[in-house]
Amino acid sequence: MAEPIFDRLAIIGAGLIGSSIARAARDYGAAGEIAIVDASQQVMARVRELGIADDAGGDMAQALKGADLIIICTPVGVCGVVAQAIAPHLEKGAILSDVGSVKGAVVAQIAPHVPAGVHFIPAHPLAGTEFSGPDAGFATLFQNRWSILTPLEGADASAVARLANFWTRIGAKVETMSPEHHDKVLALTSHLPHLIAYNIVGTADDFGEQTRSEVIKFSASGFRDFTRIAASDPTMWRDIFLNNREAVLEMLGRFNEDLSALQRMIRRGDGEGLFDFFTRTRAIRRSIVEQGQDTSAPDFGRR
Amino acid sequence: MAEPIFDRLAIIGAGLIGSSIARAARDYGAAGEIAIVDASQQVMARVRELGIADDAGGDMAQALKGADLIIICTPVGVCGVVAQAIAPHLEKGAILSDVGSVKGAVVAQIAPHVPAGVHFIPAHPLAGTEFSGPDAGFATLFQNRWSILTPLEGADASAVARLANFWTRIGAKVETMSPEHHDKVLALTSHLPHLIAYNIVGTADDFGEQTRSEVIKFSASGFRDFTRIAASDPTMWRDIFLNNREAVLEMLGRFNEDLSALQRMIRRGDGEGLFDFFTRTRAIRRSIVEQGQDTSAPDFGRR
Ligand SMILES: NC(=O)c1ccc[n+]([C@@H]2O[C@H](COP(=O)([O-])OP(=O)(O)OC[C@H]3O[C@@H](n4cnc5c(N)ncnc54)[C@H](OP(=O)(O)O)[C@@H]3O)[C@@H](O)[C@H]2O)c1
Ligand SMILES: NC(=O)c1ccc[n+]([C@@H]2O[C@H](COP(=O)([O-])OP(=O)(O)OC[C@H]3O[C@@H](n4cnc5c(N)ncnc54)[C@H](OP(=O)(O)O)[C@@H]3O)[C@@H](O)[C@H]2O)c1
Repeated sequence: MAEPIFDRLAIIGAGLIGSSIARAARDYGAAGEIAIVDASQQVMARVRELGIADDAGGDMAQALKGADLIIICTPVGVCGVVAQAIAPHLEKGAILSDVGSVKGAVVAQIAPHVPAGVHFIPAHPLAGTEFSGPDAGFATLFQNRWSILTPLEGADASAVARLANFWTRIGAKVETMSPEHHDKVLALTSHLPHLIAYNIVGTADDFGEQTRSEVIKFSASGFRDFTRIAASDPTMWRDIFLNNREAVLEMLGRFNEDLSALQRMIRRGDGEGLFDFFTRTRAIRRSIVEQGQDTSAPDFGRR
Repeated sequence: MAEPIFDRLAIIGAGLIGSSIARAARDYGAAGEIAIVDASQQVMARVRELGIADDAGGDMAQALKGADLIIICTPVGVCGVVAQAIAPHLEKGAILSDVGSVKGAVVAQIAPHVPAGVHFIPAHPLAGTEFSGPDAGFATLFQNRWSILTPLEGADASAVARLANFWTRIGAKVETMSPEHHDKVLALTSHLPHLIAYNIVGTADDFGEQTRSEVIKFSASGFRDFTRIAASDPTMWRDIFLNNREAVLEMLGRFNEDLSALQRMIRRGDGEGLFDFFTRTRAIRRSIVEQGQDTSAPDFGRR
């Protein structure tokens, strides 16, 4: 196996993402030692049972001692508090990163606490499932998935390259962009789809018991796909919408305009308009499958 | 193998659904002989190549001779024309059915053409994929999926039972309800989700080339699920929205109300409201997985 890229990796927050990074870093030899700290005693106990860290004692100062890569993997809403708590223990030359699904607000929360001499390089791996917690993680989560780095102006190039190497070693493809650009792209590719999915499932839930049970029974006709997305962690998604408000509201505005147009076509019986609209959207699916971003198997290949 | 339920099955329209019924009827011995007619010469040629019919000569009078079950499997928009064309060839005692995704409008189109002595029993199998045409079909498509029968008032009970047996034989579970009720339930479980999926993919498509290519690249963060649904056949979906206008517009109205509420929570930074909303929607997913309507594997189990 190739040399580890970091001597000691410290992960703060051992949920789906944090525990997956720990497992992957060990399996692919990306870090010499791995320390994990989580605010929850229950999670720490489970981390010890799973045996996915070399140091799971739970003491922050101890965990960060000698750590040259620290990744904050908590929900976005507590990133600032966590950064403040760990700041005194960060060593000169270390790289501090995170995995938050929003970048602008995370930078605003974390940056003020970063001591001089520590390289703060925000990141966001585009990988996850609808499950959360340390048991949901697995080492291959990042295989062939993007990890987006959003280094701030004047960031140290060699530190950025080292972090990129880390992600590549655990299977990801790395892309770099500004925090603002990240937040716009993700508002469209991830945050808006999740909002819409939550909303349509909510609409069904508003009906009485009888309709709700029929919706569940006949969900395979389209609805069930939305329920998977809408089963994602409420804390994570609350934090995303609170912290990427502007970009999400902009995308939602555009979505609403388009939906009004479709609604008008249905009301007026404009078959040609509907047909054209439904034809246009097929090209995007084709590109996604061609670029290996999804399976071409009918119905995602599920049975 | 058990006795065939029908002596001769005639299928009009050999796309995904028609060709799947033909394959299933043969594999599970549900019909003695199978005839297929399609308006397209190309489709007929392919049906002969695939060898999925006993009679694929293409002559309507010939195909319907002796047929005791006739299923119209064309797009919803041409059901009336098809019914008119086949009416003179329907034999007394035969069952005429269809597979249209909308029932009220299909009944209105077909019923006036049904000769006395022929049992018209509309049906809708809740099974399909995002692909279409005779090559997309397969014999196991209906396994463990619902097929909804919507018999009209005064329908012959033994004819309904025989059609139910047919669907059961090819793997489906049968449910009976009125056409109006069907159209309301499906507006919520299928038509609205498809409309929303088409719309969000359209919103992304409206952006310039650069954004569009980033959306495709980073689609795995949520967006790709919507593109699969929005890759469904444009003709089929145009016909569905034109023919289930009222129920779809009603569901869309409710969806819009809920979306405005979510939008307001985001704008006001109402974290508690968002958290509650996102928690409520998880229960529906749990029921869907428990009732075997979807896989519990993370990310639909796809890789
Ligand atoms: N899930 C995804 O699909 C995905 C994908 C990419 C990025 N992300 C990002 O990854 C981050 C974590 O998401 P996740 O899915 O891994 O969430 P998760 O499974 O819920 O894990 C978060 C962990 O952080 C712990 N925690 C909370 N507050 C803490 C604190 N102050 N100090 C230390 N630990 C704390 C939580 O403990 P408790 O459970 O006791 O609160 C939990 O164990 C989020 O920022 C999210 O935006 C998620
Ligand atoms: N796809 C699904 O998921 C699904 C699920 C349940 C029910 N349904 C319903 O099933 C029906 C068929 O859908 P599908 O997915 O099987 O569509 P499809 O694959 O496009 O097949 C429809 C077939 O009907 C042929 N056709 C069109 N007009 C005709 C006519 N006047 N006479 C004879 N054949 C004609 C078409 O030929 P051309 O291609 O040359 O036009 C095509 O071969 C629709 O009513 C739909 O609502 C679909």
